[in-house]
Amino acid sequence: MSDHKERLTALRRELEVRGLDGFMLSTGDEHITEWPAPFAHRLAWLTGFTGTAGAAIVLSDHAAMFIDGRYAAAVRDQVDGREFVFINVAQTSIGDWLAATASSGAHIGYDPRLHSCAAVRAVQRSLAHASVVLIAVPDNPVDAIWPDRPPRPASPLFAQPIQLAGKASEEKIDEVAAWLRSADIDATVFIALDSIAWLFNIRSSDIAVAPLGYAFAICRRDGTCDLFVDEAKLGREVRYHLGNRVSLAPYDDFYAALGGMGGQRVSIDPELSPIAIEQLLTAAGASVREIRDPTQLPKQIKNPVEIEGMRQAHIRDGAAVTRFLHWLSIEGPRGKQTELSAAERLTAFRRELDGFHSVSFEPISAADANGARPHYWPTAASNRAIQADSVYLIDSGGQYFDGTTDVTRTVAIGRPRSEVRDRYTRVLKGHIAIARAIFPEGTLGSRLDPLARLALWEAGLDYSHGTGHGVGHFLNVHEGPNHLPASPRPGETGIEAGMILSNEPGYYKPNDYGIRIENLIVAVPRQVMGAEIPMLGFETITWVPLDRELIDTALLTRAELGWIDDYHAEVLTRIAPLVPPDTRAWLEQRTAPLTQNA
Amino acid sequence: MSDHKERLTALRRELEVRGLDGFMLSTGDEHITEWPAPFAHRLAWLTGFTGTAGAAIVLSDHAAMFIDGRYAAAVRDQVDGREFVFINVAQTSIGDWLAATASSGAHIGYDPRLHSCAAVRAVQRSLAHASVVLIAVPDNPVDAIWPDRPPRPASPLFAQPIQLAGKASEEKIDEVAAWLRSADIDATVFIALDSIAWLFNIRSSDIAVAPLGYAFAICRRDGTCDLFVDEAKLGREVRYHLGNRVSLAPYDDFYAALGGMGGQRVSIDPELSPIAIEQLLTAAGASVREIRDPTQLPKQIKNPVEIEGMRQAHIRDGAAVTRFLHWLSIEGPRGKQTELSAAERLTAFRRELDGFHSVSFEPISAADANGARPHYWPTAASNRAIQADSVYLIDSGGQYFDGTTDVTRTVAIGRPRSEVRDRYTRVLKGHIAIARAIFPEGTLGSRLDPLARLALWEAGLDYSHGTGHGVGHFLNVHEGPNHLPASPRPGETGIEAGMILSNEPGYYKPNDYGIRIENLIVAVPRQVMGAEIPMLGFETITWVPLDRELIDTALLTRAELGWIDDYHAEVLTRIAPLVPPDTRAWLEQRTAPLTQNA
Repeated sequence: MSDHKERLTALRRELEVRGLDGFMLSTGDEHITEWPAPFAHRLAWLTGFTGTAGAAIVLSDHAAMFIDGRYAAAVRDQVDGREFVFINVAQTSIGDWLAATASSGAHIGYDPRLHSCAAVRAVQRSLAHASVVLIAVPDNPVDAIWPDRPPRPASPLFAQPIQLAGKASEEKIDEVAAWLRSADIDATVFIALDSIAWLFNIRSSDIAVAPLGYAFAICRRDGTCDLFVDEAKLGREVRYHLGNRVSLAPYDDFYAALGGMGGQRVSIDPELSPIAIEQLLTAAGASVREIRDPTQLPKQIKNPVEIEGMRQAHIRDGAAVTRFLHWLSIEGPRGKQTELSAAERLTAFRRELDGFHSVSFEPISAADANGARPHYWPTAASNRAIQADSVYLIDSGGQYFDGTTDVTRTVAIGRPRSEVRDRYTRVLKGHIAIARAIFPEGTLGSRLDPLARLALWEAGLDYSHGTGHGVGHFLNVHEGPNHLPASPRPGETGIEAGMILSNEPGYYKPNDYGIRIENLIVAVPRQVMGAEIPMLGFETITWVPLDRELIDTALLTRAELGWIDDYHAEVLTRIAPLVPPDTRAWLEQRTAPLTQNA
Repeated sequence: MSDHKERLTALRRELEVRGLDGFMLSTGDEHITEWPAPFAHRLAWLTGFTGTAGAAIVLSDHAAMFIDGRYAAAVRDQVDGREFVFINVAQTSIGDWLAATASSGAHIGYDPRLHSCAAVRAVQRSLAHASVVLIAVPDNPVDAIWPDRPPRPASPLFAQPIQLAGKASEEKIDEVAAWLRSADIDATVFIALDSIAWLFNIRSSDIAVAPLGYAFAICRRDGTCDLFVDEAKLGREVRYHLGNRVSLAPYDDFYAALGGMGGQRVSIDPELSPIAIEQLLTAAGASVREIRDPTQLPKQIKNPVEIEGMRQAHIRDGAAVTRFLHWLSIEGPRGKQTELSAAERLTAFRRELDGFHSVSFEPISAADANGARPHYWPTAASNRAIQADSVYLIDSGGQYFDGTTDVTRTVAIGRPRSEVRDRYTRVLKGHIAIARAIFPEGTLGSRLDPLARLALWEAGLDYSHGTGHGVGHFLNVHEGPNHLPASPRPGETGIEAGMILSNEPGYYKPNDYGIRIENLIVAVPRQVMGAEIPMLGFETITWVPLDRELIDTALLTRAELGWIDDYHAEVLTRIAPLVPPDTRAWLEQRTAPLTQNA
């Protein structure tokens, strides 16, 4: 803690020198990346907070951490409550807190390259009637006081070949150019690392959990693009792949290039673009149009090659998770394993797989009470033993060259209590309701989400997160714009065939246990005899057995039992050939029909 | 038609005299009332269109009618397609049409007392990049050319006694004043006729289908109010009821009174207030705060006395509808009745009931293909015969001093086709899913709506309207802010105990038949053993038998069959004592358990 106290003191000294009364910082990098590389971990370095979403305001005599409900527990463990007050943003927004707390006339600095247009404007709106102003500062004061800050990573870029991408970069760029012409815009600016990776069919290893490389891009209506990327990342092969239409320039020249766009109509995505982009373009005399990044929706609608890659990656990944569950069935009751050792074991199984690139996020490995925190990650301090009577939850995934996985299983070590079986079965009923749903093309995800909750609602229970999120193809494990969210989201456009989502209802009993069941699903057309409108359903692509000890068959309908038995039969067919004989024998038992004795 | 052509010519002449290039008009009155009194039927007088929502733009050489999908068929029947083009507002907004069609520099007039702030601004936003401007005109040019325009009605106001209202007007006004003080606002302006009726516990008969009287009101933070109402409407009794805190002023003085509010902070509801209010307040130097009308949510959450009144009104109303269905079971197969004669018969049964005030809307009485138009109303021209093999739909309701009803039943005359039985049963499954749902307090209605569609979705079918709407207590049959809408609505705040909604899924086969089943439901707390959060469910309060010939029991679960049998048993208990012996005998047959032979 004392390190963080010294850093806070150093930051306050730095702010005083610069004539600032406070400073706002948050978890993202210059690309608003969910899990940025370490050089951007300014908030974690300053405060100790390692969550994926959060912000801090440091004033001369107060400081506050702003987090959402997911991190209410983590922030207490990680951040010194004597230095920071903890504010849930659902109750008090950053702007409202500033308006109420900062002295009249206060100048609050922020780094405009790190906060989106939307985020900065939300704060400014709250300050409209207060005499507190946000000041964009050109040099980040945290960087000035962080002596051993790591450099920006410089992993090589590599091409995602057409056999895996399914669509040539030239074609994608043509579509962006056609969109620019139809919208009467001269150029568009790409900030999001996954948009750039998808558009140019390139990947890299700058981010620990996603195959992304630091870059910016500008594309024009004539179909030419500038890609701003460090020289060190460019080998001969990727230069050849990028071709003549893509001009290469140093990463650090990007902001200067915006200054040369005066007189042009330029689109930016206000949710994905740091406000510095808008400020620089406007100052240069460009006419800025705020429109959604035109790759967002095409990227979410997977092409047949991407879908097939995702299917194949999931079969291999399923073999690793099945081997892990078999290992856990032996090791769990012995009581010698912990959340961290189990997570390492699962990652080791994944590393053995063909086409493995990295994990898609650090595994959430959570025993008993830790499982009751939906966004818990184990640390040395929090690490719990897996015991002979534990309820254990593991949420994990891999990045493979042909796809990205994300799977959660909850297992009982020993005989589970009847309450746990009841809750697990209700969560499973919700999972099956999504998996079996038939719905009109374009239905909003927020309108499907309640199907996953009905069985819990009947018992007066619920869970506090959405039912699912979009998943990228060898890209980010979380991608939009469509999810299965727990409340309508601005920008939702509805589910279309080819979108890949997670299906992950849960139940969390504070200080006791957590349950979540997650498979990935692909939206696919459903032929219904006599249908009057185009209908969709979901194809499940994750193949890992469910814990049959946790299923109370008395709560299930015949259709639900049939779904489970069919699912298990398919798990066996796909996974048995890929696992050692002892695991195969275990899997046969675990996937036997539940209805055979009925 | 030639009348309407002459009127259009007269309007164009009038616009030319005034130097206007066009004029915008719509269906509402100065209170944006859904079914205004005849003096406000300017759009119908000019064009022939009698729908409840629509607008027209008249230019010197073009004219357009803007309607939503509900009125696509009606507008073709009613309006001369040689004079007006018909535009579906879901495809092209008024503003976009104007921007594309009006000549550069065109001045388009509108009456600012007839269009809400929100509506005018939506048009202005579309015109931002076009050189077409909207001009607020002080005198409506339609009024200048409408020689025999009816006068504004002057029905007496009467008090809604505390035994029926459940809460004194003083208490409601105190709550508005407390809200004004807490929001630091000096005064609020009430425009909506049902807000004023609810706040002051007054009713009238100015509107044919709702017990409302034309009035405006201003309330202040000290708990005093001004009520602007025609002298002729004020008897001794209602003056006494209104008491000392309410100052009375002539209706026509209202706009002048706004001019005297300079220097005050005044709230208006931008959805419910004509833009003239905002313009006059701003011109007078008031500081206008745009906030939802503070009576909207309290009005929707019924108190126990209002709920009990609604229950009682529904029992009496159910007796009238049951007598009608019995009559139809005899008359229908004879083939002598029509949509209009049947609707008259039903209204006649209602008129016999205690406490009847008026219908709550003109009955939608629709046979066969007419039923396939969800917002069809029969006219002399469209009136169809009810035949021996008809599928007949009737959607109707009454206004009673203790409550408002709204009920739809679909019946087969003769033996229905198996397709019709299949569709009816799927609609019924959706209706039952809403009726039986258990959900967390505050769940958005748009998230419950899909439950009503699942059985249709399974067959590739859907319906194009929401599943339900809020219903007032001896007020408007449609009230917000919460409904069961087919897509998330801005301003939805979630379902709370005491809200009364309709539950009316449907299915419509174009040019063939329509099906809708509607009961009203009250949101009530549900005690669930072991519940971790407050849960709600719905109590159904409409008591009218369902057509058992249309139910395919093979499609129903045991729970659904049980719901129908329980519902019918309760219909019999409540309605049998209120109907003549022959109807009672018929009702006994129609409500016998479906499961008795199973």
